[in-house]
Amino acid sequence: MSSCLGNVFRVSTWGESHGGAVGVVIDGCPPRVPLSEADVQVELDRRRPGQSDIVTPRKEPDTCKILSGVFQGQTLGTPICMMVANTDTRGSDYDAEVYRPSHADFTYDAKYGIRNHEGGGRASARETIGRVMAGVVARRALQTLLPSCSIEVVAYVESIHEIRAKAETLEKVTRHSVETTPVRCPDPEAAERMISLIEKTKGDSLGGIIGCVARNVPAGWGEPVFDKLEADLAKAMMSIPATKGFEIGSGFLAPTMLGSQHNDAFEMEGNRVTTRTNNSGGIQGGISNGMPITMRIAFKPTATISVPQDTVTSAGEAVTYTGRGRHDVCVLPRAVPIVEAMTWIVLCDHALRQRAIEY
Amino acid sequence: MSSCLGNVFRVSTWGESHGGAVGVVIDGCPPRVPLSEADVQVELDRRRPGQSDIVTPRKEPDTCKILSGVFQGQTLGTPICMMVANTDTRGSDYDAEVYRPSHADFTYDAKYGIRNHEGGGRASARETIGRVMAGVVARRALQTLLPSCSIEVVAYVESIHEIRAKAETLEKVTRHSVETTPVRCPDPEAAERMISLIEKTKGDSLGGIIGCVARNVPAGWGEPVFDKLEADLAKAMMSIPATKGFEIGSGFLAPTMLGSQHNDAFEMEGNRVTTRTNNSGGIQGGISNGMPITMRIAFKPTATISVPQDTVTSAGEAVTYTGRGRHDVCVLPRAVPIVEAMTWIVLCDHALRQRAIEY
Amino acid sequence: MSSCLGNVFRVSTWGESHGGAVGVVIDGCPPRVPLSEADVQVELDRRRPGQSDIVTPRKEPDTCKILSGVFQGQTLGTPICMMVANTDTRGSDYDAEVYRPSHADFTYDAKYGIRNHEGGGRASARETIGRVMAGVVARRALQTLLPSCSIEVVAYVESIHEIRAKAETLEKVTRHSVETTPVRCPDPEAAERMISLIEKTKGDSLGGIIGCVARNVPAGWGEPVFDKLEADLAKAMMSIPATKGFEIGSGFLAPTMLGSQHNDAFEMEGNRVTTRTNNSGGIQGGISNGMPITMRIAFKPTATISVPQDTVTSAGEAVTYTGRGRHDVCVLPRAVPIVEAMTWIVLCDHALRQRAIEY
Amino acid sequence: MSSCLGNVFRVSTWGESHGGAVGVVIDGCPPRVPLSEADVQVELDRRRPGQSDIVTPRKEPDTCKILSGVFQGQTLGTPICMMVANTDTRGSDYDAEVYRPSHADFTYDAKYGIRNHEGGGRASARETIGRVMAGVVARRALQTLLPSCSIEVVAYVESIHEIRAKAETLEKVTRHSVETTPVRCPDPEAAERMISLIEKTKGDSLGGIIGCVARNVPAGWGEPVFDKLEADLAKAMMSIPATKGFEIGSGFLAPTMLGSQHNDAFEMEGNRVTTRTNNSGGIQGGISNGMPITMRIAFKPTATISVPQDTVTSAGEAVTYTGRGRHDVCVLPRAVPIVEAMTWIVLCDHALRQRAIEY
Repeated sequence: MSSCLGNVFRVSTWGESHGGAVGVVIDGCPPRVPLSEADVQVELDRRRPGQSDIVTPRKEPDTCKILSGVFQGQTLGTPICMMVANTDTRGSDYDAEVYRPSHADFTYDAKYGIRNHEGGGRASARETIGRVMAGVVARRALQTLLPSCSIEVVAYVESIHEIRAKAETLEKVTRHSVETTPVRCPDPEAAERMISLIEKTKGDSLGGIIGCVARNVPAGWGEPVFDKLEADLAKAMMSIPATKGFEIGSGFLAPTMLGSQHNDAFEMEGNRVTTRTNNSGGIQGGISNGMPITMRIAFKPTATISVPQDTVTSAGEAVTYTGRGRHDVCVLPRAVPIVEAMTWIVLCDHALRQRAIEY
Repeated sequence: MSSCLGNVFRVSTWGESHGGAVGVVIDGCPPRVPLSEADVQVELDRRRPGQSDIVTPRKEPDTCKILSGVFQGQTLGTPICMMVANTDTRGSDYDAEVYRPSHADFTYDAKYGIRNHEGGGRASARETIGRVMAGVVARRALQTLLPSCSIEVVAYVESIHEIRAKAETLEKVTRHSVETTPVRCPDPEAAERMISLIEKTKGDSLGGIIGCVARNVPAGWGEPVFDKLEADLAKAMMSIPATKGFEIGSGFLAPTMLGSQHNDAFEMEGNRVTTRTNNSGGIQGGISNGMPITMRIAFKPTATISVPQDTVTSAGEAVTYTGRGRHDVCVLPRAVPIVEAMTWIVLCDHALRQRAIEY
Repeated sequence: MSSCLGNVFRVSTWGESHGGAVGVVIDGCPPRVPLSEADVQVELDRRRPGQSDIVTPRKEPDTCKILSGVFQGQTLGTPICMMVANTDTRGSDYDAEVYRPSHADFTYDAKYGIRNHEGGGRASARETIGRVMAGVVARRALQTLLPSCSIEVVAYVESIHEIRAKAETLEKVTRHSVETTPVRCPDPEAAERMISLIEKTKGDSLGGIIGCVARNVPAGWGEPVFDKLEADLAKAMMSIPATKGFEIGSGFLAPTMLGSQHNDAFEMEGNRVTTRTNNSGGIQGGISNGMPITMRIAFKPTATISVPQDTVTSAGEAVTYTGRGRHDVCVLPRAVPIVEAMTWIVLCDHALRQRAIEY
Repeated sequence: MSSCLGNVFRVSTWGESHGGAVGVVIDGCPPRVPLSEADVQVELDRRRPGQSDIVTPRKEPDTCKILSGVFQGQTLGTPICMMVANTDTRGSDYDAEVYRPSHADFTYDAKYGIRNHEGGGRASARETIGRVMAGVVARRALQTLLPSCSIEVVAYVESIHEIRAKAETLEKVTRHSVETTPVRCPDPEAAERMISLIEKTKGDSLGGIIGCVARNVPAGWGEPVFDKLEADLAKAMMSIPATKGFEIGSGFLAPTMLGSQHNDAFEMEGNRVTTRTNNSGGIQGGISNGMPITMRIAFKPTATISVPQDTVTSAGEAVTYTGRGRHDVCVLPRAVPIVEAMTWIVLCDHALRQRAIEY
């Protein structure tokens, strides 16, 4: 079990879906960063179950409590522990013996020889509460350290099942355009169709793609050859439950382009080096180049469905299983703040690592 | 700069493309693993320039030298340092002032304020020699620790530009079918067309997709929630030069499937839990489930081309640049052993981590 | 700020002396280890203020609460978060402006530009609650993994000020002999004099030496060349507040011995290799040799005293400062369980690291 | 085996005493630091065998070769690999079966089930060559990053066996006073007696104490609660072969002082906060306070002696063993540059860590 991410800005999440609480410890946050429970709550509310009609009705107020590391509204430079109590747990919805298909029941048993079968335990998306809380700290830290560079991270639902947002709505995506609809797709027309699809897919589930752009990241962040910026972003995103693929810049389109099409010509914009195109996705050789960092992350359809499925028990018996519990038909709207949080966490860690060696 | 990968089995590569040597230090390899320079040389020869007509003619024998950690043909448990001397360096092919498009010249300057402009320096694919050497050690270590489980890792060229191998040739891919042609595509017919395309694309460059399968990996490897097996594989692959995307299992197809289509039904195969389909790609909840681990990695076309391109100098002057140096039209055939090496490294690290806590 | 210790068994403490709570997250604990709040409470009670007449009267019940990682009385293999709420905080005892001599007020200000001046904040010995909790988990984990080897760790007060326990009482020290007196010195006569000295030293403070022995540690633990077992023990002990020196085996007596006196002759004890003497302190070349691991740790007198002292304020003004707050004349009796906890933590981490590579 | 030290400035040594070479990889060194082989050679020559009549006659020129990470006299920010070839190896001096008393032969066998019995293998002091090389890089990096603060690290032989340098010669110790005699003791009279003692102790061996002072370290370095500056220094020193004890500031004298004697009163020196005494040894709460950092390290007498000793073989047979090989009667003069190197390495790592979070 390794629940720690980052080198200088280190994030450790803890907690099971149906235990006493879930939370996070952040070690390595710079001191004197303004931080309050209210700041954190804003993002928790974007991830929260029950926030709209298209997400799980599980009722959790998900109230942030800061236990350490903050004094009179500012970080101390010491570890920040934050938690959210689990209140609405219904462990009885779960069956201790059955391996739910495409869940982590079997693999946790294979690895640990024990698991908390009340909910997904540690594999539940509830673990991501700690990530979202850490993301707020990372964002605040970057804004405090680099007040003039106004880094901006915006994630959005690009597609759900076969419904895709129009490309032109994605290029100029803003937090505001994302928050306009509960499905968090900046194309209002596509959003409406997505919502209809979610509503009529009760019982089964839907996947999709989340896009994310980080703007105004300074050139020079990323630590080749293994901690390249895109490598750490890939790891961060692929550690989110239900992700199956990651792209930076041109992604899986790159293979079909010629070098003469794909190369991003450099040009000057005043005193600043920029590129005419951005197939690189803002990163070259593992280091940010100052252009927007563009990513796409593939999410599989939620594993919990109420369609009967073939499976086995821990005793090796074949059974038919039908999901109970209260789950999302489509997790993407709630995953948007998680993708943003992971981006902030990786950026903050790399910003601090670069500060360590630059002079 | 972070050139260290892994937690228990730790791999640190070092060296620039045109410095004295490139190499690797492996710390944490179990003792008493059989290892010789000849073992390592086999894989270096698969990565080596000049191995066939379709790769760069740069002449480097790339001869492996073991400097420490091996005694009388066995590992000691102490750090293994291996190196390859750089012999055929033509630094004069490179221009100190020009930022080559889609290379790391600009970003290294932005980060470090200095770079070795003779070749790509640390950003050169020559750095991957250390990875390939470490991959051999990882494979040997796993074979020694787990003699009965016969783990097998096979990477292959799935597509180059628009040419794709037939799906049925990929499912049963073997090391032998991959090595049949210099392009390392297991579909002989597609391979022939790929070779023709590479030959006629002189001056420009081509990208493609490498697939990789790891068979017979035991269930239980992977360390949620951040060091999930697919997250560490994603990081390892996205740290290889020229990669733009990563998929595990269903990858970017998952978003368009329903949960009822995507879920992998469990069933028994004798005493063993298996899944009927493998959309999960051998990993569930970040932990291997015993099914084949299947990945796809997107490579962009090589950045070095001899077509004139617009760019700027470090002084901010607009210039036209035409690549010299000796480079591959398409790196994929030589990248196959690198993808395999990264897979072995990640698997070995996770195998050791699992051994630490299981009893 | 780095509040994380260990490679495989990773301990992260969090919390300030006068914040909401103090606690710990343990990541990497093996699964299926029996653990309850009651187990942990036993050790917390040995560290607790107010446990006897010779320690600080600060009243804290220090009640352990397990928030995650334990299910039905067993560890899950997932992060274990435990906390103790701060209840009896009197921040007003402290002065925000004055730098208390030989406390960390000035250095925290110099480092962070901010500090929680209500109590010692993070530098308070209250932080060690998390260590003691983690020590219980480490002990339980080792006992579960290695049921037959009965590792035993006993720390004790060897001296306070000029009063030293008789050598013969130390050699055969047991948990029981330590717990016989509130001062935790296994020599009852010395203990009595220590207690008298503590009682009559009100207003000033006393230092001393804690000895610690770890018996039945298997040969083969320790990771040269930097993570040698004695190096990691030294670091662990020197991270405890108020420590000034560390010895392993012969310690500072070694310099005055000849090699022929100091070398520990090997001899067989049945099938087991042992040494006739134990100047090595159970560790040779950084690796345990199966003999008792013997350490001594020097503690300075508590910095808080009620004697007036010269000092300065954060504004650079010279002032006279007289300590208020409720503090121990001598911390050693309460530090005994902390030294034991650190030993268990280091041993457990090294046991798991050795398991990773042995076969 | 963990041969990696440091968080941001990471040092990995490799190599056995009688293998092909010994060396080091430094990852995380800032770019544009002036560095040449000649710089490094100066310190290697201070550690080198055969440098004077009082050290081992083993003849090794120990010539530094930089393999990567340096370009045109400056560091690139990429990993620096340096090596020294082993030239004068006489493996036949060693016996594969006998466990030499107080060497690491038995423990390496117990841990790894294999060892390089030609010399001490990895446990040989020859491994420290890599540390000395890394120390030069650390010093150069600090001097480049902080040109105005003129940090100075001076280690010296304080005592050998019963002979102690006069206290007043230690307080004002300089590199020059240390280098005046081959025994590296700044008290000329004591030095002379030490040399005589070494000369007449042929066949047996001597231990002693090395003192070390780091002057002009800025306030604010050190990362509580586990990576406290003194904790990391203790670990670094206790990882040097043959060390048995570590003290910071008042060390083992602290236990016998009263708080009112031990506390260091703060006072202003112009605008700077200083302390009247320095029992803290320059570190308070794990963080440097700007005063000199003072340490003492106990070294045992060299384990190799030519006096016959009782021991056992790997087969468990009792034998008498008499050391051959060429070894130092007293390692302390050659250990002085190693202690300095470890100090520089720890300081540089903490300097970079502090830069990461300060603003």
